Amino acid sequence: MANPLTPDVLADPVALTRALVDVESMSRNEKEIADYVDEVLRQIPHLSVDRLGNTVMARTDLGREQRVVLAGHLDTVAINDNFPSTVVDDLIYGCGASDMKSGTALALHLAATLPDPGYDITYLFYEAEEIESRYNGLALVAESRPEWLLADFAVLLEPTYGVVEAGCQGTLRVSVRTTGRRAHTARAWRGVNAIHAAGEVLRRLSDYRPRTVTIDGCTYREGLSAVRVSGGVAGNVVPDECVVEVNMRFAPDRTEKQALEHVHEIFDGYELELTDSAPGALPGLTAAPAREFLTAVGAEPAAKLGWTDVARFAALGIPALNYGPGDPLLAHAPDEHVEIGKIRDGAATLHRWLASD
Amino acid sequence: MANPLTPDVLADPVALTRALVDVESMSRNEKEIADYVDEVLRQIPHLSVDRLGNTVMARTDLGREQRVVLAGHLDTVAINDNFPSTVVDDLIYGCGASDMKSGTALALHLAATLPDPGYDITYLFYEAEEIESRYNGLALVAESRPEWLLADFAVLLEPTYGVVEAGCQGTLRVSVRTTGRRAHTARAWRGVNAIHAAGEVLRRLSDYRPRTVTIDGCTYREGLSAVRVSGGVAGNVVPDECVVEVNMRFAPDRTEKQALEHVHEIFDGYELELTDSAPGALPGLTAAPAREFLTAVGAEPAAKLGWTDVARFAALGIPALNYGPGDPLLAHAPDEHVEIGKIRDGAATLHRWLASD
Repeated sequence: MANPLTPDVLADPVALTRALVDVESMSRNEKEIADYVDEVLRQIPHLSVDRLGNTVMARTDLGREQRVVLAGHLDTVAINDNFPSTVVDDLIYGCGASDMKSGTALALHLAATLPDPGYDITYLFYEAEEIESRYNGLALVAESRPEWLLADFAVLLEPTYGVVEAGCQGTLRVSVRTTGRRAHTARAWRGVNAIHAAGEVLRRLSDYRPRTVTIDGCTYREGLSAVRVSGGVAGNVVPDECVVEVNMRFAPDRTEKQALEHVHEIFDGYELELTDSAPGALPGLTAAPAREFLTAVGAEPAAKLGWTDVARFAALGIPALNYGPGDPLLAHAPDEHVEIGKIRDGAATLHRWLASD
Repeated sequence: MANPLTPDVLADPVALTRALVDVESMSRNEKEIADYVDEVLRQIPHLSVDRLGNTVMARTDLGREQRVVLAGHLDTVAINDNFPSTVVDDLIYGCGASDMKSGTALALHLAATLPDPGYDITYLFYEAEEIESRYNGLALVAESRPEWLLADFAVLLEPTYGVVEAGCQGTLRVSVRTTGRRAHTARAWRGVNAIHAAGEVLRRLSDYRPRTVTIDGCTYREGLSAVRVSGGVAGNVVPDECVVEVNMRFAPDRTEKQALEHVHEIFDGYELELTDSAPGALPGLTAAPAREFLTAVGAEPAAKLGWTDVARFAALGIPALNYGPGDPLLAHAPDEHVEIGKIRDGAATLHRWLASD
């Protein structure tokens, strides 16, 4: 396929959003979209470009006093009868329209059209944000190309519906395992059914009442969800193992360790395995570049409830926040869409901010 | 290979058991063993022989008042480091030794050595008992050669460790589905978690107290077991579907329809899909040929808990029971074996019964 990211498309963040949605890029399948982005960025004279796997970095080197990062991920969750994009009135529907190809489109649009920004800018278009951390493009960059992330401030173009969302919740996943003893189902009493035993695990999940926490004026609402369950040997065998995977989202006043201890308390008596963990990030709204950005946006910040990669910047001491045109409530939904007006507003706001000074 | 079922081997049920075990005959691979059985039966003057696929039928036509069926399947589950047979003290080890080549050997031994039985006898050596019903040799005969099954009484030589096991339990499987609404786990309260909802399904399974039913002196213990559970979309998504597969084993005083109604009552309020169903069989011990057989065995009958092909005879109105030298607890086990003494006892009992009158 010819590269759909033509100069006309790059000049229009709305057309660019559709073009990005129309390249299927479920996590671990980002090569095609990364190739297109890589190719067009290398043709832009004011940028120097580098690549790590399917993560593409482009930067200006204008000798500005401050450097900011604009970052967007290229991957989406699995398509769900929502590919390719469609337009209904002023809405673009499609997998990734909200999370976060409309945001990524803003960064790519700015990279292509802003040769002389007020700050030096590092653009990051990265892979595998929707799956386990070990694949995350930004994490891989932090490991092997940490210099790409050095900046005074970072904006992640995650869906926030045009609101500044500050900090982020932490996330961890555990496998809760129940065990039993196999038997033929015709003699079920000779066995111990591990799936039946998982009923108590699910009961504790149903009964759990999550906390709500306010920090720097931002309110974080925690959550504890079973995200997968599996067990069973054969249609005539009492199963000896069942595994419930649980995802906890925790406010940034808990460390990862404290959150894990809390999960251990909830599932006291069960075998737990930690499969994934990422810290939250405190809002960090007091840093100077964050304040300037807030002024450009001209609205009050809110808490970011999802975990986002702002935490990776926070871990490096770089203030970071989320700001994007998508609606976070539509992320991963079959009817995922983005308002065209929000894309245009976002592009205007970022131009205003980055052209200032 | 020369036919291993020589006259000397046919005359000795123990040697015959080993010879049958030593012909590999996993389900759908019964041609070789069926060819051997077919060939030797056709050489026996008092039998007329017919064949359907890899199922061989042989019958006497002596004009007796009553006809009985002796049936054994030729197939085994997959070998599991237990082929060919070995003998340790008075045990024959090997795939199928218990389930059910020792039983099948008794029928074949009688076919070869009993020219003048008290009843007319139909011998059935059939294929594909260990796999899905649609391949089952007895089911295929019932469909296209039902006249082969006509009899006053049937004995299946399934492993019962020398005990008469009467009737059999029915079995059915349903999928119990819970549904919810997807959401990002960072905003779990916007979704409805279908896995959490399955907790109530598992609670009902844990709380269920199965019946124990006694019919004709045989005690059937029912069971209701989750055999599989699955649900989940991704590690960060509140799942909108969870399916628990449940296997019910029911006593033969319930029809399939009644058993399904019962399962619907248990899971009232949930969406159920029936995925598999087979009727039980009443013990049928009051029929005259059954009483005579019990006298020959000289021991009290017990309930058969697993589903067996006796239900296929029961469905045709023919009383049927299980009686064989193998140990049912060793069926399908890597250390499957049979006691030589049980083979000799079984042969003596059947001779006593069939020579009587």
